[in-house]
Amino acid sequence: MDRRSFNRRMLVGGGVAAATGLTSLSLGSIDASSAEPALGTAPAGGAVRHLKLYAEKLADGQLGYGLEKGKASIPGPLIEINEGDTLHIEFENTADTPVSLHAHGVDYDIASDGTRMNKSIVEPGGTRTYTWRTHAPGRRKDGTWQPGSAGYWHYHDHVVGTDHGTGGIRKGLYGPLVVRRKGDILPDKTITIVFNDMTINNKAAHESPNFEATVGDRLEVVMITHGEYYHTFHIHGHRWADNRTGLLTGPDDPSRVIDTKIVGPADSFGFQVIAGEHVGAGAWMYHCHVQSHSDMGMAGLLLVAKPDGTVPGYDPHGMMTHGKAAPGKAAPGKAEPGKETPAGEAPAKEAAGKPSGSRAKTTAAHDAEAHGS
Amino acid sequence: MDRRSFNRRMLVGGGVAAATGLTSLSLGSIDASSAEPALGTAPAGGAVRHLKLYAEKLADGQLGYGLEKGKASIPGPLIEINEGDTLHIEFENTADTPVSLHAHGVDYDIASDGTRMNKSIVEPGGTRTYTWRTHAPGRRKDGTWQPGSAGYWHYHDHVVGTDHGTGGIRKGLYGPLVVRRKGDILPDKTITIVFNDMTINNKAAHESPNFEATVGDRLEVVMITHGEYYHTFHIHGHRWADNRTGLLTGPDDPSRVIDTKIVGPADSFGFQVIAGEHVGAGAWMYHCHVQSHSDMGMAGLLLVAKPDGTVPGYDPHGMMTHGKAAPGKAAPGKAEPGKETPAGEAPAKEAAGKPSGSRAKTTAAHDAEAHGS
Amino acid sequence: MDRRSFNRRMLVGGGVAAATGLTSLSLGSIDASSAEPALGTAPAGGAVRHLKLYAEKLADGQLGYGLEKGKASIPGPLIEINEGDTLHIEFENTADTPVSLHAHGVDYDIASDGTRMNKSIVEPGGTRTYTWRTHAPGRRKDGTWQPGSAGYWHYHDHVVGTDHGTGGIRKGLYGPLVVRRKGDILPDKTITIVFNDMTINNKAAHESPNFEATVGDRLEVVMITHGEYYHTFHIHGHRWADNRTGLLTGPDDPSRVIDTKIVGPADSFGFQVIAGEHVGAGAWMYHCHVQSHSDMGMAGLLLVAKPDGTVPGYDPHGMMTHGKAAPGKAAPGKAEPGKETPAGEAPAKEAAGKPSGSRAKTTAAHDAEAHGS
Repeated sequence: MDRRSFNRRMLVGGGVAAATGLTSLSLGSIDASSAEPALGTAPAGGAVRHLKLYAEKLADGQLGYGLEKGKASIPGPLIEINEGDTLHIEFENTADTPVSLHAHGVDYDIASDGTRMNKSIVEPGGTRTYTWRTHAPGRRKDGTWQPGSAGYWHYHDHVVGTDHGTGGIRKGLYGPLVVRRKGDILPDKTITIVFNDMTINNKAAHESPNFEATVGDRLEVVMITHGEYYHTFHIHGHRWADNRTGLLTGPDDPSRVIDTKIVGPADSFGFQVIAGEHVGAGAWMYHCHVQSHSDMGMAGLLLVAKPDGTVPGYDPHGMMTHGKAAPGKAAPGKAEPGKETPAGEAPAKEAAGKPSGSRAKTTAAHDAEAHGS
Repeated sequence: MDRRSFNRRMLVGGGVAAATGLTSLSLGSIDASSAEPALGTAPAGGAVRHLKLYAEKLADGQLGYGLEKGKASIPGPLIEINEGDTLHIEFENTADTPVSLHAHGVDYDIASDGTRMNKSIVEPGGTRTYTWRTHAPGRRKDGTWQPGSAGYWHYHDHVVGTDHGTGGIRKGLYGPLVVRRKGDILPDKTITIVFNDMTINNKAAHESPNFEATVGDRLEVVMITHGEYYHTFHIHGHRWADNRTGLLTGPDDPSRVIDTKIVGPADSFGFQVIAGEHVGAGAWMYHCHVQSHSDMGMAGLLLVAKPDGTVPGYDPHGMMTHGKAAPGKAAPGKAEPGKETPAGEAPAKEAAGKPSGSRAKTTAAHDAEAHGS
Repeated sequence: MDRRSFNRRMLVGGGVAAATGLTSLSLGSIDASSAEPALGTAPAGGAVRHLKLYAEKLADGQLGYGLEKGKASIPGPLIEINEGDTLHIEFENTADTPVSLHAHGVDYDIASDGTRMNKSIVEPGGTRTYTWRTHAPGRRKDGTWQPGSAGYWHYHDHVVGTDHGTGGIRKGLYGPLVVRRKGDILPDKTITIVFNDMTINNKAAHESPNFEATVGDRLEVVMITHGEYYHTFHIHGHRWADNRTGLLTGPDDPSRVIDTKIVGPADSFGFQVIAGEHVGAGAWMYHCHVQSHSDMGMAGLLLVAKPDGTVPGYDPHGMMTHGKAAPGKAAPGKAEPGKETPAGEAPAKEAAGKPSGSRAKTTAAHDAEAHGS
C-alpha cells in the first residue's frame, strides 16, 4: 500500500523519481495482475517541490498554461501535491500581455497572490516564482481544530483583460490543483471538467470533450466552474458524495449523495467513481443540466468500455451533439481506454517512463522548509 | 416499529399488499390512538417491484406521467422504493411525440438511460420496460465504502423538444423518486415542490399549490428544480438539515441547518419537518427567495392547521398572491388537512384501502434478482 | 473560559451588563495580556431579552434598521443570541411606508412572521413587538433528534415595495442574526458581508467596504445574499468549512473546506478564520467571483495588519477598484485595526464601556419563559 502510493507519487515528483528520472509509474499497471489489489493511498507530504510553468498564446488565439514551452493546454496541467508540501513554481510568461497565477485553497503570502494589487503579476517575457504551501490538519495551541489544505482546488489568471482576470480565464488560463491528505485513496485516472462560460474546457459548442475509462476503473473527476454563468453539473449512471473527497467516510457520514450539483464561477469540487459500477459499460452523458446550456452543446460523454475495449451501443458518428472524441480515438463501438485526450484528462495508465503531457512533474527535495505565515 | 413500517411499505407494494389488494394503510391512522407512537421506519429492501407508468398529453396541452390512463399529473407520481429494491416500470407512451424516462440516483444500464443516444426512448403508442435497481451501502472488496442509493431523486423525460428533454420537462414530464434506507424515518405525508422555470409544479403564476398539514405532522418535502433558472427555496417557520435526509443524525452531525437553499435545474433534495413545531399553526409561506421570482408568483402556502382543523389568521380569499388552494378545499379559517391537492401532494392519511392517486403502487415479489453492472 | 464568555455575552445583554450599564467588554482586550488565552465560548441560553429596533429612512433615500433613532445602518445591527434565548424586539417604524421584520432560522408564531398576509407589518409611525424564540438541540419524545436554532441567520423587511419586501431589501432593510450554541467558539470580531443585487452592503460599485483585522485575530464573517442574482463569494488566502459553524468539528468531520461558495438571495452562512493564518499580513481581496460582478465592483479588502499596525504592500490610493476604506481610516501602509467602519462591521475591540453602534444591545432577564408552539 505505502510502497504503491509512494510509487504513484512519483507522478508529482517523489524523491526517487527525481533521482532516477522516472516520471510516471502507473498504479493501474501494477495492479493489473492482482485479483484484489490493495488501493494506493496518498503518502504524508512535507516535500519541497519545484515546477516550471508557462503561460502561452495558443495557435487559435486562446491562452493556456503548460509544463513545457509550446505545450500549453486548456485546462492547464493537473497539479497534485500532498498536505505539507511546498511547491515553488517558476512561472514564465511567453504571451504578449501580463499574466498571473492565482491559486485557490493553498497557503501563499501576498507575493504569490497573483494580483496586480499585490504586485505579483508577470509582464510579457518575465519570470516569477510563485510559492504555494500546504499544511496538514491538526490542533492549534488554543485547542481548536485547524483544517488541512486537502481539496479539489484550482488555479487561474487574475490580470488578463481586467484586474480579476476575466479575459485570461475566458481564453483558457485555468487548471486543476489537487491537494491530498495522507491516506486519501488514489484514483486510477483523473479527468478535469471545467464549465467556462458556455463551454466545457473552452471547446466549441457540441465539441465538448469525451473521456474514457474501463469498467471498474477508479475515475477521479475534478470539476471547476469559471466565467459568468451558474450551471448544474450532472453525470448519467454515476453519483458521488457532496463532501471533501466525494467519497463517504463510512456509514456515519451524513453527506448527501448526489448526481447533480449547482456551481458558479470559481467553485470546484471533486470525486471518484468506479466507472460503470452497478450500471455497466456504455456511453454515459455528462452535461450541464440547465436546459438551454445542454441544448447549446454543454454535454460530453464518459465512455466506459468493457474490458475488451468496446463501448456497447456507442456510435461515435451519431454523437456529435453529445461531445466530440479526440481525432482518431473512438472507432465505432470501440473506444480506446487508456489513451489520453489532449487536454483535461490526465491518465495514470500510460506505460512506465512515458511522460504525461498534462500532469505536473515536479522535482522534489525533502528538505524541511519553514511554512511562512 | 417494524410491523408498522412494513405496513406502510404497502403503499409502494409490500408483499402483503400485493397479495391482499390493500394499497394504502396509513401510518398516521395507526398512530392516532397512541399517546407516544413509535415511529415508522423503512424496512430493508430487496424486493422486485413492477409498476405501470403512462406518459400522456393533458387537456391543457401539457404533458404528464401517471399511474393510470387518463390520470397523469404534474408532478408525476411519487415513486418510493427501498435500497436493494429493483423496479421494473412498464412505460407506455400515449402522447403524440417520442417520450422517455430518465432517472437520477438509481442504477440502470444504458437500455434504461432514457436517451435517444442510448436508444431507450419510446415512440408514440409504444411501450418499453425501464429497470431501476438500487443498492444498500456497504464495503467493497477493496475496503472502500460504497454509498447506497438512498436519496431524494427524481425522474424526467430526456427527449421531447430536444435530446435533453427540454420541451418535455417544460410541459410537465417530471416526478419525484425517493429511495429509502433501512431505518429511515417514514413521514406522515410527502409533498413534492418543483420549481420549473418560473412556475411551481407548472401552475400559473400566483396559482402555486398550497399544501396542508396538522400541527405535529411529520411532513416530508421533496424539492426538485427544472428548467432554465436558479432559485432559492425558502419556507417560513421551518428549517431542515442540509444533508442526505434533511434530519440531523444526532449531536455530532456537523451539517448546516437551513431554511433557504440555492438550487438549479435537476438538483433535488428532501427533508422532514414537524409541521408547526415551535411556531404553531398558521399559513406559512414557501417561496422562491429570488425577489422577482416571488413577486411574479413563485410562492405558495403550507397551511398548518390546529387539531380542530382551523388555520389561525388564514383568509383564503386574501391569499391570491400567495398560491391557490385546490378548489373547494380551504374554507375561510378552516383548511382541510388530510385531503390531497390534485398534484404534488401524496397524503399518507387517507383511509385504509383508499388508493392514492399520486403515490406509486407497485406489485412486488421478493425474489432475489441479480444486480447488473 | 466560562467567565470570559460570560463577559463577552454582555455585548448582547448578559444580566450583569444590564445591571451595570456596561455594554461592551472586549474579549480581545482581556486576552491581550495572556500568552495562550483560553478561548471564549458561548454560554447556555435561556434568557429573555429585550431590544429596541428602528426602521428609518436614511439621508440618501435608502432604508436601514438601527438600535437608536437616527443611527440606522446598512446592514442593520448584528443581533446575537444563544440557543434557548427569547428575544422581544420592540420595533418602531419611523419611515414613511409600512415596514416589517421577518427573521430566518428562529422560532416565531405568525404574529411575528413580518408579512402582510399574517398581519404582522408596521405602519409608518407604528410600533410592534416581534418575538423570536430559539431552542437548543435535543431528543424529541419520539426518539428523533431535533436540531437547535444555532446558525448564521438574518432578518429583513417583507413588505416594502412588494409583499416579499423587494423594495425594502433593495434599499437596505436587512441585517445579520447569529444564534450560538453553548460551547460555540466566540470570535474576536464579527463582520457582515451582504451581496445585495450588484452591491456589497448597498455600497456603490467600486466602493465596497474594506474590513480590518490583525494577524491572529479570530475573525467571524457572516455572509448573506439578497436581491436578484446568484453570486460566488470568494476570499483570498483564507478558507472555511462548509458546515454549520464554518469550523471543522475535528478530524472526522467530512465537510468540504472551501474558499468559494455559490449563493443566492436569502442564503446565509458564516465562518471564522484566523486572520492571516499561514499567509501573513496583507491586503486580501474578497469578491464575488462571477467575473462581470467583480469587474463591476463587487470586491473589497480584508486588510490584515501586522501587530505593528502596518499592512504590507497596501496602498490605499491604488485600491479604488478593490473597495473603499472608510474615510480617514487607512493611511498608506498602515491600516488602523480596531476601528470600525460605519456599517457591516461589529468590532469587539473597542474600549470597555464604549457602545458599539452596530452590535445589538439587549436587556435581559433570566426569567424562564415558556416557548410557544
